[in-house]
Amino acid sequence: MGKGTKGKGSQFCVIGLGRFGSSLAKELVHLGHEVLGIDRSEELVDDMSSLLTHTVCADSTDEEALRSLGIRNFDCCIVAIGGDIQASIMTAILVKDCGVKKVVVKAVTELHGRVLEKLGADRVIYPERDMGIRVAHQLVSPNLLDYIELSSDYSVAELSVPQCLSGKTLADIDPRKRYGCSIVAVNKPNGVIIAPKAEQVLEEKDIMVIIGTNDGIESFEKDVSER
Amino acid sequence: MGKGTKGKGSQFCVIGLGRFGSSLAKELVHLGHEVLGIDRSEELVDDMSSLLTHTVCADSTDEEALRSLGIRNFDCCIVAIGGDIQASIMTAILVKDCGVKKVVVKAVTELHGRVLEKLGADRVIYPERDMGIRVAHQLVSPNLLDYIELSSDYSVAELSVPQCLSGKTLADIDPRKRYGCSIVAVNKPNGVIIAPKAEQVLEEKDIMVIIGTNDGIESFEKDVSER
Amino acid sequence: MGKGTKGKGSQFCVIGLGRFGSSLAKELVHLGHEVLGIDRSEELVDDMSSLLTHTVCADSTDEEALRSLGIRNFDCCIVAIGGDIQASIMTAILVKDCGVKKVVVKAVTELHGRVLEKLGADRVIYPERDMGIRVAHQLVSPNLLDYIELSSDYSVAELSVPQCLSGKTLADIDPRKRYGCSIVAVNKPNGVIIAPKAEQVLEEKDIMVIIGTNDGIESFEKDVSER
Amino acid sequence: MGKGTKGKGSQFCVIGLGRFGSSLAKELVHLGHEVLGIDRSEELVDDMSSLLTHTVCADSTDEEALRSLGIRNFDCCIVAIGGDIQASIMTAILVKDCGVKKVVVKAVTELHGRVLEKLGADRVIYPERDMGIRVAHQLVSPNLLDYIELSSDYSVAELSVPQCLSGKTLADIDPRKRYGCSIVAVNKPNGVIIAPKAEQVLEEKDIMVIIGTNDGIESFEKDVSER
Amino acid sequence: MGKGTKGKGSQFCVIGLGRFGSSLAKELVHLGHEVLGIDRSEELVDDMSSLLTHTVCADSTDEEALRSLGIRNFDCCIVAIGGDIQASIMTAILVKDCGVKKVVVKAVTELHGRVLEKLGADRVIYPERDMGIRVAHQLVSPNLLDYIELSSDYSVAELSVPQCLSGKTLADIDPRKRYGCSIVAVNKPNGVIIAPKAEQVLEEKDIMVIIGTNDGIESFEKDVSER
Amino acid sequence: MGKGTKGKGSQFCVIGLGRFGSSLAKELVHLGHEVLGIDRSEELVDDMSSLLTHTVCADSTDEEALRSLGIRNFDCCIVAIGGDIQASIMTAILVKDCGVKKVVVKAVTELHGRVLEKLGADRVIYPERDMGIRVAHQLVSPNLLDYIELSSDYSVAELSVPQCLSGKTLADIDPRKRYGCSIVAVNKPNGVIIAPKAEQVLEEKDIMVIIGTNDGIESFEKDVSER
Amino acid sequence: MGKGTKGKGSQFCVIGLGRFGSSLAKELVHLGHEVLGIDRSEELVDDMSSLLTHTVCADSTDEEALRSLGIRNFDCCIVAIGGDIQASIMTAILVKDCGVKKVVVKAVTELHGRVLEKLGADRVIYPERDMGIRVAHQLVSPNLLDYIELSSDYSVAELSVPQCLSGKTLADIDPRKRYGCSIVAVNKPNGVIIAPKAEQVLEEKDIMVIIGTNDGIESFEKDVSER
Amino acid sequence: MGKGTKGKGSQFCVIGLGRFGSSLAKELVHLGHEVLGIDRSEELVDDMSSLLTHTVCADSTDEEALRSLGIRNFDCCIVAIGGDIQASIMTAILVKDCGVKKVVVKAVTELHGRVLEKLGADRVIYPERDMGIRVAHQLVSPNLLDYIELSSDYSVAELSVPQCLSGKTLADIDPRKRYGCSIVAVNKPNGVIIAPKAEQVLEEKDIMVIIGTNDGIESFEKDVSER
Repeated sequence: MGKGTKGKGSQFCVIGLGRFGSSLAKELVHLGHEVLGIDRSEELVDDMSSLLTHTVCADSTDEEALRSLGIRNFDCCIVAIGGDIQASIMTAILVKDCGVKKVVVKAVTELHGRVLEKLGADRVIYPERDMGIRVAHQLVSPNLLDYIELSSDYSVAELSVPQCLSGKTLADIDPRKRYGCSIVAVNKPNGVIIAPKAEQVLEEKDIMVIIGTNDGIESFEKDVSER
Repeated sequence: MGKGTKGKGSQFCVIGLGRFGSSLAKELVHLGHEVLGIDRSEELVDDMSSLLTHTVCADSTDEEALRSLGIRNFDCCIVAIGGDIQASIMTAILVKDCGVKKVVVKAVTELHGRVLEKLGADRVIYPERDMGIRVAHQLVSPNLLDYIELSSDYSVAELSVPQCLSGKTLADIDPRKRYGCSIVAVNKPNGVIIAPKAEQVLEEKDIMVIIGTNDGIESFEKDVSER
Repeated sequence: MGKGTKGKGSQFCVIGLGRFGSSLAKELVHLGHEVLGIDRSEELVDDMSSLLTHTVCADSTDEEALRSLGIRNFDCCIVAIGGDIQASIMTAILVKDCGVKKVVVKAVTELHGRVLEKLGADRVIYPERDMGIRVAHQLVSPNLLDYIELSSDYSVAELSVPQCLSGKTLADIDPRKRYGCSIVAVNKPNGVIIAPKAEQVLEEKDIMVIIGTNDGIESFEKDVSER
Repeated sequence: MGKGTKGKGSQFCVIGLGRFGSSLAKELVHLGHEVLGIDRSEELVDDMSSLLTHTVCADSTDEEALRSLGIRNFDCCIVAIGGDIQASIMTAILVKDCGVKKVVVKAVTELHGRVLEKLGADRVIYPERDMGIRVAHQLVSPNLLDYIELSSDYSVAELSVPQCLSGKTLADIDPRKRYGCSIVAVNKPNGVIIAPKAEQVLEEKDIMVIIGTNDGIESFEKDVSER
Repeated sequence: MGKGTKGKGSQFCVIGLGRFGSSLAKELVHLGHEVLGIDRSEELVDDMSSLLTHTVCADSTDEEALRSLGIRNFDCCIVAIGGDIQASIMTAILVKDCGVKKVVVKAVTELHGRVLEKLGADRVIYPERDMGIRVAHQLVSPNLLDYIELSSDYSVAELSVPQCLSGKTLADIDPRKRYGCSIVAVNKPNGVIIAPKAEQVLEEKDIMVIIGTNDGIESFEKDVSER
Repeated sequence: MGKGTKGKGSQFCVIGLGRFGSSLAKELVHLGHEVLGIDRSEELVDDMSSLLTHTVCADSTDEEALRSLGIRNFDCCIVAIGGDIQASIMTAILVKDCGVKKVVVKAVTELHGRVLEKLGADRVIYPERDMGIRVAHQLVSPNLLDYIELSSDYSVAELSVPQCLSGKTLADIDPRKRYGCSIVAVNKPNGVIIAPKAEQVLEEKDIMVIIGTNDGIESFEKDVSER
Repeated sequence: MGKGTKGKGSQFCVIGLGRFGSSLAKELVHLGHEVLGIDRSEELVDDMSSLLTHTVCADSTDEEALRSLGIRNFDCCIVAIGGDIQASIMTAILVKDCGVKKVVVKAVTELHGRVLEKLGADRVIYPERDMGIRVAHQLVSPNLLDYIELSSDYSVAELSVPQCLSGKTLADIDPRKRYGCSIVAVNKPNGVIIAPKAEQVLEEKDIMVIIGTNDGIESFEKDVSER
Repeated sequence: MGKGTKGKGSQFCVIGLGRFGSSLAKELVHLGHEVLGIDRSEELVDDMSSLLTHTVCADSTDEEALRSLGIRNFDCCIVAIGGDIQASIMTAILVKDCGVKKVVVKAVTELHGRVLEKLGADRVIYPERDMGIRVAHQLVSPNLLDYIELSSDYSVAELSVPQCLSGKTLADIDPRKRYGCSIVAVNKPNGVIIAPKAEQVLEEKDIMVIIGTNDGIESFEKDVSER
């Protein structure tokens, strides 16, 4: 989603500027927010210094250091420490005790996540695990570009239009009848058509947004892939 | 998305069973496909041995080892080696030269990705970078659960219904008029309503799927969050 | 205190067989209880194998390993891991989640202790810190052998009788009048006299047990030391 | 025991500022004495610099360094070096040869202790071992808060009053008759009662100080715990 | 071959100043060219600083560093990094992308070489492998000083004249008749005779240049060695 | 040069199977000789075991080990140990003392070479240094494929025929007159012409072998390159 | 001195088989005694196994291990551990406590030696220090082969006869008169002459044994060296 | 032997200031000579800086460094490098090539010594080996204080007078008759008696110097020890 145009952004603190943390921090800046980046490694801090609002090289497990940075004033603090589980845990409890409203922590194992939840982390995320699942779906369905799981049964999927559907109308395809799915948008070179009509013609390379049951979407995707 | 019910799945080979690779491999199995998992570390291979179709402890930069595993017969090979860039590169070229149809490789830096593309990788992925961006969006918009970027201007977003909209109908809200966005589905406790009618009432904790411009969705999300 | 003579002892599990853990485990056996000792180090496990009821070399951060040892059946589990804070935390949460009734954990820093308490440890102990305080008191008061703090004001103290009091009766000394303290027992070579009479004569090398305010005991100890 | 009010305290030197040494040194300061803290690690010295009278970063196995610090003028020197047995031994002999009146040394193994005694250490202490024993006793007897061993047969114990004794008088309980033990003090919320009368009523959460044989105390503690 | 006397030399950049790279760089300077030497090791850079035109201590996998050195202006860049294959690959792609006309890269294994070729290296060299082959030939033929392979069948060889040929004329030896080889030059103490006449007398220690088939040269060399 | 056809080859022992040593050993086998390869690394020995006559994993600085391998019976022993100078020196003296006729040792620095010569090595080689020089010459002269230095003044050079000479006869070019050099052979697609006639026509991509002074060859090469 | 011919030798135990310990152990065997060699290193034990009466690979700081080897039955135990001062100290106290009659320990620093003496070592030796002193004397006096210090003033010296004294008789030289020294023996090619007569002629390469004051011997040595 | 009184001492350079080298260097200074001490370790150089004439921290394998120190002007250079055999060898050849008149080198193994001799070391010494032999002799013969081997058969020995010889005259003992040995000096508390008379009385604690065959001395020593 595009860069925000809000009057005033929020204040984020990202602790841990590895691959995940730095990407997150840069995107937050891109979305119009103020970001303080903290890492123990001077090298990583230097790499980010021109890209974030503020950067500090500090040990986030040192309570004094955290307090002197005024951590408690941030709206949200993301602990994105990857390799050192002890540092992740110690940082999480210190940040939480500082009184930060929202503390999001990256976990690397399920057990790590359990500890973080017990310590009161507002949200525990597993980026590598979640990305592994997401990529698996994309690999399995060649036309599947991205998807959102709405529930355990329903999803929204972004599918590229395969050659075999080129030139056909939505009425020709009628996914609602065959698969119980609705095509709710079509992304064409000259713009996105929301709630397309039945006589809308699809062309190869168009992208359609479809909502339905997982089985229905899967069957649809499989049928049009194999034709 | 749910587990597949296809007659016969594809054959995947996942090289590198770290956090990303193992999550990917497990999900592929969950989706009904055969997966061979390979790693240099006996410990990681043991952890996966009961979860994947086959596992082998091998050095993927050893051409003989790869050939003896019949790599060329796999439909798709994912090189998910994380820390050792040299091993990632060497494995990628060997797998590509074996004749595997589709080779997907995880890159850890932009330069790493450039090398992989020159070597002919069919797809280069940056899981930590992409996840960082995705999490950034979710943090910025408290009601945003997930989203798909359709183009640089349009997105599909999954938003939780805030308290201020509870009890209102779609007609009351009329996002199309105010923000140029359409609510294309509502996920309620008792099921997903696709293409909901204007008189559909929203309740707190419902989840709505909305399509529109990024700016429109953002304004909508911001307005309902701040009310 | 002496070895127990109970009909049936309790079942303890001591995880971490370093200096503190092994001493604790041995004393528990000495007191008539069953003790399972666990450590990651084969050497430490071997050293204890003939001294404890059972010993196992295992990684206590491996949930499967803990379950297979039937940890949940123990009455009390002491996590005495010293150097590796991460392992201490992970073990504590796993043991707690197994359902062990009482979980005692050694902490090495105040922050470590805070994490353990948040994770639900029934008791957090700081052996080195507590021993430092205890030894400090003994060093400051040459006649002080040991003491118990009853409250922030009162203590019980075990004092050796200095030469200057040799041959005197309790009536001569009358600590209750001078210092507000009572001598409640005297340990003589031929036995302990509880609630000694006023005419009881003290000899050098006798040991007296005194109860009173900290200031009173300190003044008494100081006066008799300096005479 | 509380902080001293002596006119002038003694001068202590604590070598080794790990967990035990730093706790000891801080308590000595708290009790009103001057303490010089020495450690090889600049980090540990920095941590203590505002808490002790003096701190120096020095190698205590360097005879010249010790002499230049005027070690021989201290009343008592505690060698609290933990991990490096060689440094502990070398420091002990140097400090002893300097002419310090009282040299107390922490030992980590029994063999280490034997060496230290042969080298003339005035007192050898085993903090982890002693703390292990002390904690074992507390774990075994749930109501036992602390204890002092007067001899191999007799102890003073601090016991919390269990629910089953609540409302009873000392005469009701009569531990002297049943267990050969005397309750010599009762710590109640509003103060400590020394040498309580027979009609004194106990309430739950009161703490009693009891003197008697180990077996007697143990039987008493066991009976009231199990009721 | 001797040092060049050209009006203006070319500009070379040698990255990696180990044994091979430093020898190459020094020879290029000796031949009259400008050479910039780059290495990550300050020590190696210092050793070369007085021998090359310019030297810089820099990390050649840092794109910014390379650009700021103006790499794109060099006529030829030799990547002579030995031990670190990843650095060799990353440097090669960066140098190539900078637009350097000719990029020569040292490979240490055949697989390394394949990667470099795919990345567009203009020439991949294997110094240790080639030198092993060259030395093998010299060892096998005691009189063989050096050789050039013209094709898989023909070579030019530099042979020392053995004692058994001393005093003989080319006509006596007649290698063209016996071995199908021509002696095209004779190097005598007082100068080189090109295209020597048939009556030319050979002396021991003279060196002859011979052209012919590999088998012919080998037979000739073997016959005169064994006589 | 091609593979030998000798009735019986010599016996070589190559100690050190790194890049240089293994290439040398393989070429010796290719030339028809028996080669024993020795290295301390089991991995390197395994890699070579199917390529050499015999391979042994042994410590070449262990005199007993060397004797038991019958080193003294080999015609020539090449010590190709690269990184460990001490092992190279110790091996060289042991091999020499065993009575091996010819001992060739790889040196990595000039000082290393001086030691080896004093210890009686029959030949000291510097593969990386020599290869650096050779590659430098080839880089400087684009048409120079290879060369042999006959003396400090004269060389034989293998030059590719540039476009500007295509279609010309040797008489047209007349290098003897202009540069004092003789073209003694021309390698054409259909065979090598030794001692070509003046009317011989050159074509692009032909390769010519030229003998002359270094300056002459260099001028010739430069002129034809620049035309 | 030569190998002993005693009926039955003593039993020695040498702990630590480095350069000094192994040389000592071998010489004891050579002198006809039984020697048990102990070292923690399997490699060193293997090297000595065929040269000593018994060898055992054991940790000499493990009291059980020492007892099971029957250390207390040895006549003399030499602790020749070099690098690990802690192991040297621990071994010394254990061996001493075992009841070995004579315990000799190698010290590496003066402080180490002080500890060993306090622990009751019967003799502390400093091989490297003593050898340094001995070699210094030999270097200073070119003709001095060896010497024994009888007291701080007197020595016995073994001097080679310099050229300038060749052919002279003892009467000619008369060292007693000039330097207060006596030549008490002359070692000639055909045998040693004890208490040589005044008319005894010296030849170059003879060796004389001289007794006298240090200054006298030094002056004599210096005068004959410089002539 | 005592400190020299020479007008001008020699100039020594000691490279390697470990235990042996530093002891040697200090003794040379003590004997009145100028000593330059060199070591790679700043710590060792600092320790010696006030004890030697000059000290320098330098890498002795760096030819330039050695030359700049003017090594060639020293009378004698002792290479006393212990642990790093390569550095010992490289230093030895450099010092030798500098033109130092006398180069003495410490060897740690026999093979190391062979290399040093081939490289032209004027003297190779094995301090640990020699000291091991010397101590062995002293241990075997309790009265033997020191000895010099004159030849393989004859020695000079310094023996303490045992109790059983106390009060006896040399005539009583008559070692010449019984053991073929001569007592050539007796060291008594009030001075050394050279060439003592037959009526000289020995007292316990006197020290005698004896010359004779090894077997004779050994028999004598054994007889008087056992009496």
